[in-house]
Amino acid sequence: MASPPEIVLTGESGSELAQRYQRIRDQSLALCESLTAEDMTIQSMPDTSPTKWHLAHVTWFFERFILTPGMSGYEVFDESFDYLFNSYYYTAGEMHARPRRGLLSRPTVDQIVAYRAHVDEHMRRLMEAPDDELKFLVTLGLNHEQQHQELLLTDIKHVLAQNPLRPAYRDDLQVGATEDGDSEWNRFNGGVVEIGHAGDGFCYDNETPRHRTLLRDFEIASRPVTNAEYLAFVRDGGYRQCEHWLSDGWAKIRSDGWSCPLYWEAGESDEDVREFTLGGMRPLDMNAPVSHLSYFEADAYARWAGARLPSEAEWEVAASPLPVDGNFVESGSLHPRGSAGEGMTQLYGDVWEWTASPYAPYPGFKPLAGSLGEYNGKFMCSQMVLRGGSCATPGDHVRASYRNFFYPGDRWQFSGLRLARDL
Amino acid sequence: MASPPEIVLTGESGSELAQRYQRIRDQSLALCESLTAEDMTIQSMPDTSPTKWHLAHVTWFFERFILTPGMSGYEVFDESFDYLFNSYYYTAGEMHARPRRGLLSRPTVDQIVAYRAHVDEHMRRLMEAPDDELKFLVTLGLNHEQQHQELLLTDIKHVLAQNPLRPAYRDDLQVGATEDGDSEWNRFNGGVVEIGHAGDGFCYDNETPRHRTLLRDFEIASRPVTNAEYLAFVRDGGYRQCEHWLSDGWAKIRSDGWSCPLYWEAGESDEDVREFTLGGMRPLDMNAPVSHLSYFEADAYARWAGARLPSEAEWEVAASPLPVDGNFVESGSLHPRGSAGEGMTQLYGDVWEWTASPYAPYPGFKPLAGSLGEYNGKFMCSQMVLRGGSCATPGDHVRASYRNFFYPGDRWQFSGLRLARDL
Amino acid sequence: MASPPEIVLTGESGSELAQRYQRIRDQSLALCESLTAEDMTIQSMPDTSPTKWHLAHVTWFFERFILTPGMSGYEVFDESFDYLFNSYYYTAGEMHARPRRGLLSRPTVDQIVAYRAHVDEHMRRLMEAPDDELKFLVTLGLNHEQQHQELLLTDIKHVLAQNPLRPAYRDDLQVGATEDGDSEWNRFNGGVVEIGHAGDGFCYDNETPRHRTLLRDFEIASRPVTNAEYLAFVRDGGYRQCEHWLSDGWAKIRSDGWSCPLYWEAGESDEDVREFTLGGMRPLDMNAPVSHLSYFEADAYARWAGARLPSEAEWEVAASPLPVDGNFVESGSLHPRGSAGEGMTQLYGDVWEWTASPYAPYPGFKPLAGSLGEYNGKFMCSQMVLRGGSCATPGDHVRASYRNFFYPGDRWQFSGLRLARDL
Amino acid sequence: MASPPEIVLTGESGSELAQRYQRIRDQSLALCESLTAEDMTIQSMPDTSPTKWHLAHVTWFFERFILTPGMSGYEVFDESFDYLFNSYYYTAGEMHARPRRGLLSRPTVDQIVAYRAHVDEHMRRLMEAPDDELKFLVTLGLNHEQQHQELLLTDIKHVLAQNPLRPAYRDDLQVGATEDGDSEWNRFNGGVVEIGHAGDGFCYDNETPRHRTLLRDFEIASRPVTNAEYLAFVRDGGYRQCEHWLSDGWAKIRSDGWSCPLYWEAGESDEDVREFTLGGMRPLDMNAPVSHLSYFEADAYARWAGARLPSEAEWEVAASPLPVDGNFVESGSLHPRGSAGEGMTQLYGDVWEWTASPYAPYPGFKPLAGSLGEYNGKFMCSQMVLRGGSCATPGDHVRASYRNFFYPGDRWQFSGLRLARDL
Repeated sequence: MASPPEIVLTGESGSELAQRYQRIRDQSLALCESLTAEDMTIQSMPDTSPTKWHLAHVTWFFERFILTPGMSGYEVFDESFDYLFNSYYYTAGEMHARPRRGLLSRPTVDQIVAYRAHVDEHMRRLMEAPDDELKFLVTLGLNHEQQHQELLLTDIKHVLAQNPLRPAYRDDLQVGATEDGDSEWNRFNGGVVEIGHAGDGFCYDNETPRHRTLLRDFEIASRPVTNAEYLAFVRDGGYRQCEHWLSDGWAKIRSDGWSCPLYWEAGESDEDVREFTLGGMRPLDMNAPVSHLSYFEADAYARWAGARLPSEAEWEVAASPLPVDGNFVESGSLHPRGSAGEGMTQLYGDVWEWTASPYAPYPGFKPLAGSLGEYNGKFMCSQMVLRGGSCATPGDHVRASYRNFFYPGDRWQFSGLRLARDL
Repeated sequence: MASPPEIVLTGESGSELAQRYQRIRDQSLALCESLTAEDMTIQSMPDTSPTKWHLAHVTWFFERFILTPGMSGYEVFDESFDYLFNSYYYTAGEMHARPRRGLLSRPTVDQIVAYRAHVDEHMRRLMEAPDDELKFLVTLGLNHEQQHQELLLTDIKHVLAQNPLRPAYRDDLQVGATEDGDSEWNRFNGGVVEIGHAGDGFCYDNETPRHRTLLRDFEIASRPVTNAEYLAFVRDGGYRQCEHWLSDGWAKIRSDGWSCPLYWEAGESDEDVREFTLGGMRPLDMNAPVSHLSYFEADAYARWAGARLPSEAEWEVAASPLPVDGNFVESGSLHPRGSAGEGMTQLYGDVWEWTASPYAPYPGFKPLAGSLGEYNGKFMCSQMVLRGGSCATPGDHVRASYRNFFYPGDRWQFSGLRLARDL
Repeated sequence: MASPPEIVLTGESGSELAQRYQRIRDQSLALCESLTAEDMTIQSMPDTSPTKWHLAHVTWFFERFILTPGMSGYEVFDESFDYLFNSYYYTAGEMHARPRRGLLSRPTVDQIVAYRAHVDEHMRRLMEAPDDELKFLVTLGLNHEQQHQELLLTDIKHVLAQNPLRPAYRDDLQVGATEDGDSEWNRFNGGVVEIGHAGDGFCYDNETPRHRTLLRDFEIASRPVTNAEYLAFVRDGGYRQCEHWLSDGWAKIRSDGWSCPLYWEAGESDEDVREFTLGGMRPLDMNAPVSHLSYFEADAYARWAGARLPSEAEWEVAASPLPVDGNFVESGSLHPRGSAGEGMTQLYGDVWEWTASPYAPYPGFKPLAGSLGEYNGKFMCSQMVLRGGSCATPGDHVRASYRNFFYPGDRWQFSGLRLARDL
Repeated sequence: MASPPEIVLTGESGSELAQRYQRIRDQSLALCESLTAEDMTIQSMPDTSPTKWHLAHVTWFFERFILTPGMSGYEVFDESFDYLFNSYYYTAGEMHARPRRGLLSRPTVDQIVAYRAHVDEHMRRLMEAPDDELKFLVTLGLNHEQQHQELLLTDIKHVLAQNPLRPAYRDDLQVGATEDGDSEWNRFNGGVVEIGHAGDGFCYDNETPRHRTLLRDFEIASRPVTNAEYLAFVRDGGYRQCEHWLSDGWAKIRSDGWSCPLYWEAGESDEDVREFTLGGMRPLDMNAPVSHLSYFEADAYARWAGARLPSEAEWEVAASPLPVDGNFVESGSLHPRGSAGEGMTQLYGDVWEWTASPYAPYPGFKPLAGSLGEYNGKFMCSQMVLRGGSCATPGDHVRASYRNFFYPGDRWQFSGLRLARDL
């Protein structure tokens, strides 16, 4: 399978590719250094996966879609892994049921690390003389692994949060001072604009084709909504007033008893709100972007604030002139931070920003051929688009046209919002 | 509350309004003539409501939003009805839980008919000298009642279908011969178009504001997909091949055991498919539009057929030049029919047509003020738009800009599809 | 099938049998006089059945087990009824699922009344010259119908209680003054006793064989626990103190939020407890036996009171010398009443009394042959025995050896308790 | 708290007690030698607990009920463990919800081993000069730990069975040849007998008081039902014929799709049945007692075979003259074995034998005082008694009067049956 015509990769040499491969693969293991085998085994809800499952699944992706079809004589590490570590590629065969991933004590972490080494060794050999198709597939596999690195972090956060002990993922995370940037409205004129992936470089099929769309004049906030601002909504009774909420969101509040963002907990005094972070329980950082919101909460806040969420096209128009720079996983804080700056800030990193756009195919969208076409396209229903990456995203993984998507009730990601409004 | 500026009603006199009121109110009772009190009491699933609940709820709508605030000295028929017959207007007070509507044997059908008479009598008095606001509210209430007339039919169909006896709603429905119209592609040029409600006349807030949108060139089929065509998909193994399906749709097939549209049943021979209709069990009419599809099924069929669903803007562009004419409830057949014709046919009536458009607010959308703002806006998430009305829709209720919406897994409405494709 | 050797019916003539048949059959319809067709259609939970289902099922019992096998040339009223109205006789064929009985609007009440007339007419003919087997089967069918008469009442009470209007089953029920009888302990000496059905007359197979069992000395209360006494338990925090409760009962309190018996409601002041009765909402009658308790609640109360529930053998020893006399359905109050008296009182009628005995086969138990063997025996697991009949039981239906049984969490029957203790 | 008067412990010295303590405590860790940290973390269903939870809970039992109240100045190892490792002693405080035990990655296995060492050290000091109460409590705690040793084995078997790889608990288990003992009927005369714990030595409160009961003449089989015999039932259509089954059992077959005992799997040919054992997948040993049956299956088999299950009194009368000897955990096979012998065999060890007796209090039963009274008494409802121990039971843990109990649908224990019949 050749890469689709719209996705053209720049001329990376075989050794450069191999270096990139090794760097990203190593990063997955580095993320596990502070974890015990017990931590890496648990599945806290059907939406999350055990750490060790992530480590194995991304490896299976290389084995199943690159080594097995592409390396003559390759023997799979373990025949059962095709069943155990397929996530949702139905056209590639039956698989272990997602909600039962936490029932697999074997293969052990050690065996999975050995699996990784086996695949890496063969991948290195294969990458010695890569053709364009291989370059595309390896790049896809590495982007896939980076997505799972972020999920690994948000999933283990959820796992640890279920424990009454509230253990930290890492005890050594820095809690830096954060600044309180003022929020200002930035005006954009409407008209026909182009969105979607442009130029060279990797992108997912769901960012294509680049196409024209029509916008009205709009304003968009210079920074995301902060914890202080969201707390005002909570204290104003926001979770008890139905008029702010979509019908499905109001039902969720009632069925699940939501009264604040995920991971917030009342502190010793009522005044005192604490939140569970990858560094353990901490006082709420008032200047930091509010995080772990569902779409329902982001939408309700915006309505309460007399504004709305931006569409994904509006967001992309605002973001595309800016460099992809921000509080990504490389910063090492693994938590959103407040930051001051001129003009539009924090579009990249800190928190994924819910948009008002349902996740739908772009006009003329064609998924990748074969099983890899199941990667993105089949999820284009009932989910909402988020943009910009978070403090758990690798910085070289995201771009202006990148479309993330979750169900409107999901909130275990680092997900927040930025306000927009009509003129 | 005045009607919103974009919804201007033509100058109907008070007596014309009263006549229209009476005609539509009478129609609700006429739809119940063939039903027993037992039929009218049952709720077959949380999504459906008992017939008598529909009769009472639409009456409560007039009482709660027109008589109580607008007629000095009006006394409510029964104070408990505010709780029993509020559907989802949370800002108007607490309500009886939706899944428990089938547990209400009282008030009886007779008492609800008396309630209707009480409200009608007061409404008639109030309409003697209507101002613009009253005209708007009455018109809204009548459109609301017409929506429930359609739901009354689709709900009672679902109720009767649960019964192993498969009793007919009416034994005297005509089964006319239907024709096999060829399907042809009709081409439309892209560019900036306007959609949304235009001109005078009533519309719902969700059809506003009329706005510009950008379309690409497209083709759209001259008629809906027929039972014969859909049966070919079923026989080709469509429900067993994951590659046609959205991920959520494939999960639904597995969890609910779907293998064909709702209401289809295998006949005496394998060749022989029968379907449950409001007139009882009948052989499948091969020329009629396929009906009772979920969005997932409509979308999967389109993919299998090498096409796609139209967007709601494409549909509206194709439909807006045409007269609103078709197989509506007034035809008396209460079932989709095959029909031949020139050019675009059956856009109105027969079956609601699933579009590829998530139900979302139009740019600049503002819901009605107050509790009536809960009518449409709060559902703008996770649902898909359907267009054109069905064989159970009153003919004067629908228009080119009319937006119906259901969850992608819902299929107890008369819902089918029409194919579209890019050029 | 002949009646089992241990069940010998006295010499009733054919016309006496027919009279008894007619009287009991008429009573079923008489119980429905105050009900609307809507009332008779609703199923409020999987455990209850619609009134009209009861009317049809008891009729089907005569048709299926007497007319069809026993009357040459008999034609069934409707072939579909074998499927619709079989309750749980799996050996007699497949059946409509129990939780879906409330989805059957057809056959209508009128059609079921016609079904009853059809079967009655044929039964009358058949009973003109009854042999012993027929006498046994008719008597079994009539006792079966009487059981369903009681269920009809407890089920419709549950149905009406779901309605926020709390409609009465009958508005004309007398609320007589009730007396406060003192409770005294009655002593019984232990030793080997005989329990189980003795002598002539009908009994169920589960009351056989009469057999010897060993009792210790015990005392048993002269009357059931009253509402006043149970209220003291509630006010003492009984539902918040885990030490009184069986583990499964404590789990039920937590999962279902129990804080008092079924049908109790706080009145206008905290002091004021009201209860839903077949005559509508009433102030709690402090002298009346507490009712609508689960086994868990009866057992917890007894533990809190420093006593225990009697075993079924203890109960039978205490009851068997006494005449079967009490507040049965014939009294017309359809509610437990307080009553004073000498010695042991209220063993029969008012409330079924939970015993400490799991429902298990008597030593040497043999179920009836064929499908009728499914009547009782297959339920001998996980249920507890209740004794004595209630205010909803026909007075000629119950006897000292009669074993009723429900799951320990069930409480929609008129079920209370009487205390016992060791010496 | 003193030991109850009926439970008198023989004069064990302090150092003998300490030796016994150490031996049993060491055995718990020995059972984990073949397990990984991942294995020890998983909870496969709400009924099972993770291995490491067992290790911690039994330790908490000593800390909470002996060290904290009884050793002056004792400081708990970790204050949070009172919440995490309380199982069901509600009077001792709130606890972590049972179905969420598998969400605890921390404390780690290593930390729990340290917890054990901490408690053991203090226990050793406390046992230097034990009084009678301490002896009783230590003995209770050790018996408690032995119960959890058995659960540890049955739970890890269930955990490993969920894994499609079917990993063995230990690869080095011996599969010895087993013999096919003939089954013979042994006759016992009825009359008044005594059952319950007699003499010195430890017992649980639920085995007291020893009391008289009345038995009829009966016969009981000389050995348990074998796999070969049970397979004949399966092949005869036993799971498809409702007439053998209790109503709740038949419902379970339908809802859970049971068609054979837990852990049986069809082999390569239809003839070939394999079963999952602690030693991995093996061909079914035809001579071994059938195991992993629910009560429903044991009861259905007995009915199909024209026999019945023994009551617990019958079982105890048959077993009490015999030495407590058999295939216990010490044999190291960890699986039931067929064995030939004279007279009554295999009453102890191999499989727990379901009896026909609901788990109910003996006449005059009094639970232990305080929180330890929650150990047994509050479960005396809806469960059935099993007798005799299994291949996973420590041999010095069981006795003729020992009452084990599980719900009738439970089958993850080594549970089988022995036939009985009336004369």
